[in-house]
Amino acid sequence: KADSTRAATPTEEMNGAGNLMDFLDEPFPDVSTYEDFHTIDWLREKSRDTDRHRKITSKSKESLWELIKSLLDAWSGWVVMLLIGLLSGTLAGVIDLAVDWMTDLKEGVCLSAFWYSHEQCCWTSNETTFDDRDKCPQWQKWAELMTGHAEGAGAYVLNYFLYILWALLFSFLAVSLVRVFAPYACGSGIPEIKTILSGFIIRGYLGKWTLLIKTVTLVLAVSSGLSLGKEGPLVHVACCCGNLFCSLFSKYSKNEGKRREVLSAAAAAGVSVAFGAPIGGVLFSLEEVSYYFPLKTLWRSFFAALVAAFTLRSINPFGNSRLVLFYVEYHTPWYMAELVPFILLGVFGGLWGTLFIRANIAWCRRRKTTQLGKYPVLEVIAVTGITALLAYPNPYTRRSTSELISELFNDCGALESSQLCDYVNNPNMSRPVDDIPDRPAGPGVYNALWQLTLALIFKIVITIFTFGMKIPSGLFIPSMAVGAIAGRIVGIAVEQMAYHHHDWIIFKNWCRPGADCVTPGLYAMVGAAACLGGVTRMTVSLVVIMFELTGGLEYIVPLMAAAVTSKWVADAFGKEGIYESHILLNGYPYLDVRDEFTHRTLATDVMRPRRNDPPLAVLTQDSTTVEDVETLIKDTDYNGFPVVVSRESERLIGFVQRRDLTLAIKNARQKQDGVVSSSVVYFTEDAPQLPASNPQPLKLRRILNLSPFTVTDHTPMETVVDIFRKLGLRQCLVTRSGRLLGIITKKDVLRHMAQMMNQDPESIMFN
Amino acid sequence: KADSTRAATPTEEMNGAGNLMDFLDEPFPDVSTYEDFHTIDWLREKSRDTDRHRKITSKSKESLWELIKSLLDAWSGWVVMLLIGLLSGTLAGVIDLAVDWMTDLKEGVCLSAFWYSHEQCCWTSNETTFDDRDKCPQWQKWAELMTGHAEGAGAYVLNYFLYILWALLFSFLAVSLVRVFAPYACGSGIPEIKTILSGFIIRGYLGKWTLLIKTVTLVLAVSSGLSLGKEGPLVHVACCCGNLFCSLFSKYSKNEGKRREVLSAAAAAGVSVAFGAPIGGVLFSLEEVSYYFPLKTLWRSFFAALVAAFTLRSINPFGNSRLVLFYVEYHTPWYMAELVPFILLGVFGGLWGTLFIRANIAWCRRRKTTQLGKYPVLEVIAVTGITALLAYPNPYTRRSTSELISELFNDCGALESSQLCDYVNNPNMSRPVDDIPDRPAGPGVYNALWQLTLALIFKIVITIFTFGMKIPSGLFIPSMAVGAIAGRIVGIAVEQMAYHHHDWIIFKNWCRPGADCVTPGLYAMVGAAACLGGVTRMTVSLVVIMFELTGGLEYIVPLMAAAVTSKWVADAFGKEGIYESHILLNGYPYLDVRDEFTHRTLATDVMRPRRNDPPLAVLTQDSTTVEDVETLIKDTDYNGFPVVVSRESERLIGFVQRRDLTLAIKNARQKQDGVVSSSVVYFTEDAPQLPASNPQPLKLRRILNLSPFTVTDHTPMETVVDIFRKLGLRQCLVTRSGRLLGIITKKDVLRHMAQMMNQDPESIMFN
Repeated sequence: KADSTRAATPTEEMNGAGNLMDFLDEPFPDVSTYEDFHTIDWLREKSRDTDRHRKITSKSKESLWELIKSLLDAWSGWVVMLLIGLLSGTLAGVIDLAVDWMTDLKEGVCLSAFWYSHEQCCWTSNETTFDDRDKCPQWQKWAELMTGHAEGAGAYVLNYFLYILWALLFSFLAVSLVRVFAPYACGSGIPEIKTILSGFIIRGYLGKWTLLIKTVTLVLAVSSGLSLGKEGPLVHVACCCGNLFCSLFSKYSKNEGKRREVLSAAAAAGVSVAFGAPIGGVLFSLEEVSYYFPLKTLWRSFFAALVAAFTLRSINPFGNSRLVLFYVEYHTPWYMAELVPFILLGVFGGLWGTLFIRANIAWCRRRKTTQLGKYPVLEVIAVTGITALLAYPNPYTRRSTSELISELFNDCGALESSQLCDYVNNPNMSRPVDDIPDRPAGPGVYNALWQLTLALIFKIVITIFTFGMKIPSGLFIPSMAVGAIAGRIVGIAVEQMAYHHHDWIIFKNWCRPGADCVTPGLYAMVGAAACLGGVTRMTVSLVVIMFELTGGLEYIVPLMAAAVTSKWVADAFGKEGIYESHILLNGYPYLDVRDEFTHRTLATDVMRPRRNDPPLAVLTQDSTTVEDVETLIKDTDYNGFPVVVSRESERLIGFVQRRDLTLAIKNARQKQDGVVSSSVVYFTEDAPQLPASNPQPLKLRRILNLSPFTVTDHTPMETVVDIFRKLGLRQCLVTRSGRLLGIITKKDVLRHMAQMMNQDPESIMFN
Repeated sequence: KADSTRAATPTEEMNGAGNLMDFLDEPFPDVSTYEDFHTIDWLREKSRDTDRHRKITSKSKESLWELIKSLLDAWSGWVVMLLIGLLSGTLAGVIDLAVDWMTDLKEGVCLSAFWYSHEQCCWTSNETTFDDRDKCPQWQKWAELMTGHAEGAGAYVLNYFLYILWALLFSFLAVSLVRVFAPYACGSGIPEIKTILSGFIIRGYLGKWTLLIKTVTLVLAVSSGLSLGKEGPLVHVACCCGNLFCSLFSKYSKNEGKRREVLSAAAAAGVSVAFGAPIGGVLFSLEEVSYYFPLKTLWRSFFAALVAAFTLRSINPFGNSRLVLFYVEYHTPWYMAELVPFILLGVFGGLWGTLFIRANIAWCRRRKTTQLGKYPVLEVIAVTGITALLAYPNPYTRRSTSELISELFNDCGALESSQLCDYVNNPNMSRPVDDIPDRPAGPGVYNALWQLTLALIFKIVITIFTFGMKIPSGLFIPSMAVGAIAGRIVGIAVEQMAYHHHDWIIFKNWCRPGADCVTPGLYAMVGAAACLGGVTRMTVSLVVIMFELTGGLEYIVPLMAAAVTSKWVADAFGKEGIYESHILLNGYPYLDVRDEFTHRTLATDVMRPRRNDPPLAVLTQDSTTVEDVETLIKDTDYNGFPVVVSRESERLIGFVQRRDLTLAIKNARQKQDGVVSSSVVYFTEDAPQLPASNPQPLKLRRILNLSPFTVTDHTPMETVVDIFRKLGLRQCLVTRSGRLLGIITKKDVLRHMAQMMNQDPESIMFN
């Protein structure tokens, strides 16, 4: 299509603008300029936007209506952000409420109103006592409702059976909906979103159907009790919202570059609602997801993240008018000596990250390459069955993972009734509730420790098989759960050691008898941060999210120590985090900003044609016929062709897109009189006056990009990689002393990088 | 120097590496590759670092010692961050303590220990009562000490006189030290640091002397009572620390690109200690100061900022073991209707920003262009005299500005004794101290309102003349003071309206009688954010800094509303913030990342030579003699010369730096036998075998950059600007069909941009 080189040749545009605009205004079948699974050209998108902006600005002086339109255009970015914030906050709230209800539905039902969750049911009941907050007559377990007996082996087995049945039903529904309506709704979505934000086109990945199905199936998947979280999918859902609202404004819907700015902000809103951490969300988008993140986007992301967080809070799904998912408040500071266990937790997190990534990738590769991948429904059913079967007997795995994490993070106050807080109290104690000294652990704590250990092993194993199935599945919550369990166990161990061995040299300096020295909840939090860091390799955003959960700078140092250790340990075994590993596994053409390319190769080693290849397919500026061009298009599948002065001189004058060439010739053959197969194609400014006997020439300078990007053959590949990364190029021509030698495409760069890192270069998706 | 093209020609390097290394190892007089007031080439710096890294990695396999060295090298970045954090935290603590003491010294002295500030003096005294915390016998005003009379007109006049005298002494000392020892220590430093971080060289700007003198004079300037703050200068001080520690590691000291990564992190540490806001500091560095900010830097900045904040806290200069400068805690939420006054404060902030920038720039321009600039000492003395004279009678201007802001931010608790909290209490009230209903204002409040209005006018006027004088002067604190005063006045007005007119429709819905509806302190905070935003145009970092001060997400919406409004209002009158305006005023070659270049010009319009100019000075690859080259170097002042195949074909083969050429010829003349003026200079791979009678040829391919950056003449300037910005180029060659047409330097780009924006293009400093 002719408008695609507009950006590159503004002088041309002044002559042909009217003509070019017709293309856009017509309901043309393929008005979007990129094909599916192709890479966008960032420079061109940016130029197109500048052109559009220029047009609007110059028009705005003409009339009041145009001025209003230009103002609306300038404000549309903020409107989109507001809408994204509102919708993603609302969806997150609805998902939270639905998950709460459906998770409890596996165990029982509220008689007074079946749409109440266990907690809501008992809160609204008058018969609830403070000591037994969880029990109220309105809430009945299935066995009690069906048989009348609440206790006994029969009731237990019936409850067990129904728990598994509900879980299987939920997960079957989830996987079926995904399979039938929106195959892209599966997984966490973050690897694909990273790839899309880096400039790849995956049509439908952020579509309306995906949004709807992902929201519904996310609820089902989380409620089924599988070892997965909703954080990653929430980012995907928020990005779908972003894409949806982009289509309201042509500024964003028609420009893939601008669209990606909106999507970056939407990703921030997604994390913001997942954790109630708006600043952390923005930093997550900046650090982990986004590719092109100008300052304007930073500010807008922050706005979207805040709106989303406040929308979520006004829905108030956690019932505490707190913004955050896990609100914690600790009453004691930490001590220098505690850094040792914190760093050990960091090491554990790093090891867990490595183990998880390797095992999960191996399993996913097996799924891709063997028969296993053909039975996704069966796989989900099987994993759900095993999960439910093993999870029910252990109270720490039966409940929802976020409740578990919440309990593990909590400090044991005086009023806490959970098993984990079953300490032996000193009867003479008369201290305020928030300053309880260390106490010896009671039988409940020891019991809990065993159950937690079993839960830890279970979570570690099952998460490896769960992540990557054909249902929406996030990784944050299971990773955090693994870390929180490990951390809590370590925390209790340290606490009891400190209590029973005050006189040991390591405790002597900071832990007097009767003091509150150790907060096991803090260890759980540090462990969660370490494990999440080990898997995702987040750094600043991780610490900031955790900081927003606790709300105090006090605990940043332990969190940071664990995050740094975990990253270093994990990096020692492999540079890629789980998202990058999945990108590699799927062969997406993703040029990581963080990969340092340090090899000594030159552009000439990477460019095509290689030695012994046929010469580069080029067009000449004034000696190719329409037939030649058509043959070239038919015989090759390149995305574009360089245009040279002549085959002998090889002086480059421009680059023409295959798409534009095809359309222009088709157009010319249909409309322009006299253009036949033997017509000569001219890319020069003026076609020569030919005798009337010659066929009518075809002038195509209009579609010629006169500013193709070139490097010399001696340019080091590290510079070429840098240029591709920073400017977002699709291809780059290679010259030597002004002669065209070859071409390097983004795919060539990625292949070369994979080769240099001893990875399989053939796995990269065609772009 | 020969090593400068190493990066660009790695294949060459393999042959000549030993040779090239000699240059580095020798104590060569100008080992740093850039001259003062020149721009660095980011791509080249990056390549050089990759080479260095490659060398260390390959060596590390040779022996254990090399392995240790490579590990040390990898860790040096973190070590530098740690040292920066420690030193800048310590310096900030020392500055805070010294300022406290010296500010109080203007009024009196502590008899028990003269190095105690007023507060410390009375805290350590046993005779202090709670009601009269400020008065204790140990602390004596000068009049009391000298005449024995604490009260009366005579004592007042004497105290007044001594206050002015001390102020004059401090400021005289400050300006003299700056003038004599470190002229670069004046001003806020942020405009220059922005320019340096964008790749400009200003030798000595971050030197040891600047560090020392800026620290000392900052204390003096702030203590003198002038309307200036320490925040901007603290950033400069932290950057000096960064530069100091860079010199410990050749990785950073010898690479201008890597050095700038460290400086970005140091800037974050500076803001972190200025406000006690580490996350805000990192975002400030990212948003406001830095140019090239890779993710690795983000993480390291965060580390440096945290270390600095914790070092400062362990010094504990504010005596409350709080991290933050202004810690506030409010007890009531805000209501939707209050957004109206908040947005009005935003408008005020934007107007103040515009007024301040215009007036201050006009005054600074006058200083630069008229006789005024020749008497910096006199100017400082005069402004100090006027400031002290006008400030003393008003209690709100007499004290230090940060104390004033702190009081304005505070909520009036029941125990507050200040004039601003002189409300009429209901004697029957028996509510807890932190939930006091709105009360009618007493005479003290009305009195305070008058004094605050006078203080507001005074601050607005005097700050315009103070910022830009030849002493260290920050802008954050005076701006915040202006906003806080305005905000507090508005807050009290709204509070009293709400109290006296409960039944007005605007108050009816949210303010019942006897409730605590309005928090005037919050208005002060919102006003401060608005004014700071109007002057600096910070957005996210501003809100995050304020968020870290209050520690609750609750008040982010008012802050954001004010910040957004203030930015929009200020932007409507002029895009540049105060720092950009000062950069423009000083003509630094700064290519702003935020300026969108939207004009339709092409590379051919900007490149030199222009039409009618003499042709471009080029070298040919095999037909220039040494004499020709020397003449060319003598006759022109270009930084480098393109090398072409021949003058006829104009095919570009490379680019050679003037510096390298000069050194190479000098070297050859000294050492290489037979190189004389008539020797031919060869840039080809092999020099032809010449008859013995011809003079010895000089082979210079070694110093030829074989991968110069080129664009075609049809490339739109917006793309060229983008390339310069993102890749950090110094120059770019312009070609058409493989023929060299001209050259565009960074200076040309800046000139062109200034021209297009109707600014004076000649003001840009030569680079």
